[in-house]
Amino acid sequence: MVLTNRSLVTIDDLSTGEIESLFSMANEMSGSMNEQFGLCRGKIMASLFFEPSTRTRLSFETAMHRLGGSVITAADIGATSLAKGESISDMARVIGSYVDIIVIRHPWEGAARVVADYSGVPVINAGDGGHQHPTQTLCDLYTIKKEKKTIRGLKIALWGDLKYGRTIHSLVFALAKFGANILFYPTPGLEVPDHVIKKLVTEYGGELEKYEALEPSVQDRLSHLDAIYITPSSPHQLAMMPDINMQVELKTGIDALYVTRPQKERFTSGEKNQELKEKYPVVDKNLLKSKEFRKTLIMHPLPRVDELAYELDADPRSRYFEQAAHGVPVRMALIALLLGLKEIPSPGEEELPHISYPAYEQDSGISCPNPRCVSVQKTELKYLKPEFKIVDHEPLTLRCTYCEHGFEPEYIASSEWHEGKTESKKYHSAKSHWAEKIRTENLIVFNTADDAEACGFKPSRYVRNRKRRNKTST
Amino acid sequence: MVLTNRSLVTIDDLSTGEIESLFSMANEMSGSMNEQFGLCRGKIMASLFFEPSTRTRLSFETAMHRLGGSVITAADIGATSLAKGESISDMARVIGSYVDIIVIRHPWEGAARVVADYSGVPVINAGDGGHQHPTQTLCDLYTIKKEKKTIRGLKIALWGDLKYGRTIHSLVFALAKFGANILFYPTPGLEVPDHVIKKLVTEYGGELEKYEALEPSVQDRLSHLDAIYITPSSPHQLAMMPDINMQVELKTGIDALYVTRPQKERFTSGEKNQELKEKYPVVDKNLLKSKEFRKTLIMHPLPRVDELAYELDADPRSRYFEQAAHGVPVRMALIALLLGLKEIPSPGEEELPHISYPAYEQDSGISCPNPRCVSVQKTELKYLKPEFKIVDHEPLTLRCTYCEHGFEPEYIASSEWHEGKTESKKYHSAKSHWAEKIRTENLIVFNTADDAEACGFKPSRYVRNRKRRNKTST
Amino acid sequence: MVLTNRSLVTIDDLSTGEIESLFSMANEMSGSMNEQFGLCRGKIMASLFFEPSTRTRLSFETAMHRLGGSVITAADIGATSLAKGESISDMARVIGSYVDIIVIRHPWEGAARVVADYSGVPVINAGDGGHQHPTQTLCDLYTIKKEKKTIRGLKIALWGDLKYGRTIHSLVFALAKFGANILFYPTPGLEVPDHVIKKLVTEYGGELEKYEALEPSVQDRLSHLDAIYITPSSPHQLAMMPDINMQVELKTGIDALYVTRPQKERFTSGEKNQELKEKYPVVDKNLLKSKEFRKTLIMHPLPRVDELAYELDADPRSRYFEQAAHGVPVRMALIALLLGLKEIPSPGEEELPHISYPAYEQDSGISCPNPRCVSVQKTELKYLKPEFKIVDHEPLTLRCTYCEHGFEPEYIASSEWHEGKTESKKYHSAKSHWAEKIRTENLIVFNTADDAEACGFKPSRYVRNRKRRNKTST
Repeated sequence: MVLTNRSLVTIDDLSTGEIESLFSMANEMSGSMNEQFGLCRGKIMASLFFEPSTRTRLSFETAMHRLGGSVITAADIGATSLAKGESISDMARVIGSYVDIIVIRHPWEGAARVVADYSGVPVINAGDGGHQHPTQTLCDLYTIKKEKKTIRGLKIALWGDLKYGRTIHSLVFALAKFGANILFYPTPGLEVPDHVIKKLVTEYGGELEKYEALEPSVQDRLSHLDAIYITPSSPHQLAMMPDINMQVELKTGIDALYVTRPQKERFTSGEKNQELKEKYPVVDKNLLKSKEFRKTLIMHPLPRVDELAYELDADPRSRYFEQAAHGVPVRMALIALLLGLKEIPSPGEEELPHISYPAYEQDSGISCPNPRCVSVQKTELKYLKPEFKIVDHEPLTLRCTYCEHGFEPEYIASSEWHEGKTESKKYHSAKSHWAEKIRTENLIVFNTADDAEACGFKPSRYVRNRKRRNKTST
Repeated sequence: MVLTNRSLVTIDDLSTGEIESLFSMANEMSGSMNEQFGLCRGKIMASLFFEPSTRTRLSFETAMHRLGGSVITAADIGATSLAKGESISDMARVIGSYVDIIVIRHPWEGAARVVADYSGVPVINAGDGGHQHPTQTLCDLYTIKKEKKTIRGLKIALWGDLKYGRTIHSLVFALAKFGANILFYPTPGLEVPDHVIKKLVTEYGGELEKYEALEPSVQDRLSHLDAIYITPSSPHQLAMMPDINMQVELKTGIDALYVTRPQKERFTSGEKNQELKEKYPVVDKNLLKSKEFRKTLIMHPLPRVDELAYELDADPRSRYFEQAAHGVPVRMALIALLLGLKEIPSPGEEELPHISYPAYEQDSGISCPNPRCVSVQKTELKYLKPEFKIVDHEPLTLRCTYCEHGFEPEYIASSEWHEGKTESKKYHSAKSHWAEKIRTENLIVFNTADDAEACGFKPSRYVRNRKRRNKTST
Repeated sequence: MVLTNRSLVTIDDLSTGEIESLFSMANEMSGSMNEQFGLCRGKIMASLFFEPSTRTRLSFETAMHRLGGSVITAADIGATSLAKGESISDMARVIGSYVDIIVIRHPWEGAARVVADYSGVPVINAGDGGHQHPTQTLCDLYTIKKEKKTIRGLKIALWGDLKYGRTIHSLVFALAKFGANILFYPTPGLEVPDHVIKKLVTEYGGELEKYEALEPSVQDRLSHLDAIYITPSSPHQLAMMPDINMQVELKTGIDALYVTRPQKERFTSGEKNQELKEKYPVVDKNLLKSKEFRKTLIMHPLPRVDELAYELDADPRSRYFEQAAHGVPVRMALIALLLGLKEIPSPGEEELPHISYPAYEQDSGISCPNPRCVSVQKTELKYLKPEFKIVDHEPLTLRCTYCEHGFEPEYIASSEWHEGKTESKKYHSAKSHWAEKIRTENLIVFNTADDAEACGFKPSRYVRNRKRRNKTST
């Protein structure tokens, strides 16, 4: 199997089989570090960080140097080309003509996708806003796999800021794909976003049990717990009778506790207030003395602030420094594979079938509602056509191809005027019964009524009536 | 021919023959990239950027890595030594004692000259304020040469901000040297500076035709055009009868259109206003549909902002991404030559005779009037002696050796008191008939009357009278 | 002798014999630069600069590249991990798991010690606040040694800001260790701190003669002089009769004049005022024309500002650019030794016996009073236990193990309640007679009376009386 010239933008770009093979290679490389030197001789990696990150950047650069390759670095690009108003695609094309592989971190969600589309060389996403950070996820999975031999059927608890941690979002999908059970322990107010949960349930076919739905006896054991996600491939088919089996299952303990820091730099002003800060729970020896944590791996993507007590550093269960150290062999394997300098044996394992959603084909002026999406930035609007998948019909939900945010448009119409009267180009509420009747290939969606009318559509009777009601009420 | 230990501060530091040979080597290198690795083994390049520039810096560093050399980088030095008040010469001496070659970008005009003077190693100017950016020019010429086989006799149009673009100034002189004809299409208000035009006409011996002087039939075809510069070596000797031949010539079309972005960071506050911004023309498919652009190479030094439409990216005439990519082999060849690791065959072509101007030898306290010149900066005044060439006598014009700005001093005197009376040390208006009478080696110039009097000179009768008139009128 | 896996945090981490051997190796390396390439093949150095420093950083990186090793750089980390509130120890552990050796500059005093304690790899201190900068000292000593063959018995004058220059503090101890005599020429107000002087006299066993104590005939010759430190190992045993012999000694002239710039970035607001700035003396030809400077090496750690005239650059006595250039071979030798890639012959020379002070063992809540000490920073308090040595008893003086600042605590007690009454846990003034009576292993010290009382101690009668007096007086 060859990964040559592929890019890693989201964790879904690698199948579970490919990830397993990559891990074998990382294992092999970490056992023979000195022999890897020379593998990338004459190859150049561009390390482009539009957001500060010492740890991740240095981990990638170390990996390339350990392979004997060269690195060109732009560690704080915010002040340079960005300031001159250059687009990401222009930067990607130019740097892509210099080097053999690009590593990019960028605050805009979907930016790594654009770089992959335009640079002409393999691209590794080192974090794009709150979207994904797939190599962190690889390090996380690699650490779990190394210690527990398999990921399938494990019980992995996620702790802290599950809302803004992009490492969490990548990890959740990867764990699901590998058949792990996930326990969510969010800091109140920082729960996993709905779109992540929805994707998890829809595409990975598991079940979500909310805490309130659990038996009191389970509730007692799992304070702070918010929900449990159970994969269908879990050995005992927990999904069938989650409440009962969970009790049985939890006796064997939690396999890993993944702690995250509050991503304060992404907090809204409301979230930044003192109250939330005080509530952020600390993982310490006391918390971990209960039975289910007896054999738990303590993990953290680092940097930590106050949420993980230093007294745990010497605890035999702690793995967070190993987790960081694993970044080097994992990234070495990844770089060597994408550059085509190593091949991996074809994975035997069966893959979870990946759902393929229909693309939204019409040009109705809708744009991604996520203000951090690369597709809505001033410099990128000049050339980027927004792209969406239709991922649900009830309610009608589109997902941006760049930042992968899902949203429910307000108004719809059909390109076939299927109401039967040719003179009537009508638009409807997306929540009306029309949503289901319009065939996917004919569907037109609008962000606002004004957009619909600008395209020459008139409100349906229902929309008209609602508008009138709104006017009267004001 | 050997370039070992020479520096590239301005494009004039290389003869046209040397440039042609360098291009042959770049061609050879780009065809055998992998074989170049090892050429610079054990050599170190310092990449010193006192102004942000991701693209140029990474292009140089890529070139050095492709040659197997090492790079030390200071990408944002503004905050470090500069803040401690260190002079450029001290920095140059120290870094020069570490490395084998230095690449420098600096906001002060003439800074690269100082580094070349003090570092003891070859120095490449990667841009010094609004002065020069010679390797950009090499990439530009290389791109034209590669596509059109020769530069001689081509018609190259320059578009946009011709006032602040340092790439434009370097390019203009190089094109003239290679015998190309230049068409100026400036954004109104951003015309090529007078000192550039003057140097072009005086030193490169061509002719300048202003738009207004062209025949109406030519005017129609060349909207936006400001002036045409015609080299004397142009095949049909256009310079003899420019108006008539130009019509003939233009039928064969413009060979390359070189677009530049508005260099807003250098605009005066007046130029920054909305009006100018709105006027900045956009090069797009519509503009390029007229006949003379049919075979035109579209070029741009990048980054672009809004002045070059994305729709042209797929246009077969576009060459701006190739132009950026060429930066690597061109810089590889340059580095290898300056380090003496490659030799080039002696160029057979004849060189345009370079005019050698007399130096201004007196120490009369004059300083360069360009506030961005390295020679007038507080940290550099401690050791830098201002140096000037006398480049014209009518009007008397001096050119700073560092930033190459020309200026006309107000007052003059002679070191020989040639008025015949020993007691009379008189100073005169530079515009008076004395200017011509004083022999160059005796010439003393002053920025102000006060400076002249501080040196012990008294005003001539003419100056006195004018002073009196001025007093009366106030 | 092997230095493998040792760190260089303060200059005292190397014995004089080790330093001499290191210099031999640097000598050898500078004579065969090209042969060293390949020595560090496959090794990676992390260059972590939490404070800007182009010169020192590039010198280290050049050294590593000359040895054929790789470098990962974080040149301006202030904005990244620090901003996320990460501790130095976490950073050290993570980066230590990536690379083979770490070079660190940090504004907090003692930070390099923490990195050495936690990273698991050799660490070189490239400057920690106002504490130490030991590789600068190595370059200084190497330059003196190279020119004068030996350091023992030389007369080295230190000039300028002797208060904030960390290069000065490292150098002073090293010179003393090597048996040089030191002449202090501070800018008034920027004298060598008392704790440095005290350590010099106590631990290096020399004598300090203040200017006022010198004979008028000596005073005349040594304007600006503040004090002379004379080592006991100095050939003529000057320390026995300093005044008389100094006159004789000075006839042979000063061997080196070490000039420093005002470290304005560390000045207090009072020191920043215009008065001090104006007083800062300039070393120029005029000052150096007197007889004792005839054969003096002029040295400066650079960058210079105004304190060293450019006219001296061409002076045959000047060595400051050589001093900077020596940084490369000295650092090459150091890196190769700490990585265990070179061994050095066992030094034959005898070492000055190093005084070993008792550790302060009690946990009484005292913290280092130096606000720039790493041990009192918010992010480090979570895991760092303050550590002190008891370096004197009269007055009682503790020295912080991290930043090496000495201080005199206000209150003391004994862990043995040796007053004989078990009910009385009393605390005393550190200046009272009790200070000497309490055995070192029982000593408890407090920063404030409140701290003592919080630990359950009551004031002794003397303390009570004093408190009462203070109250009455207010």
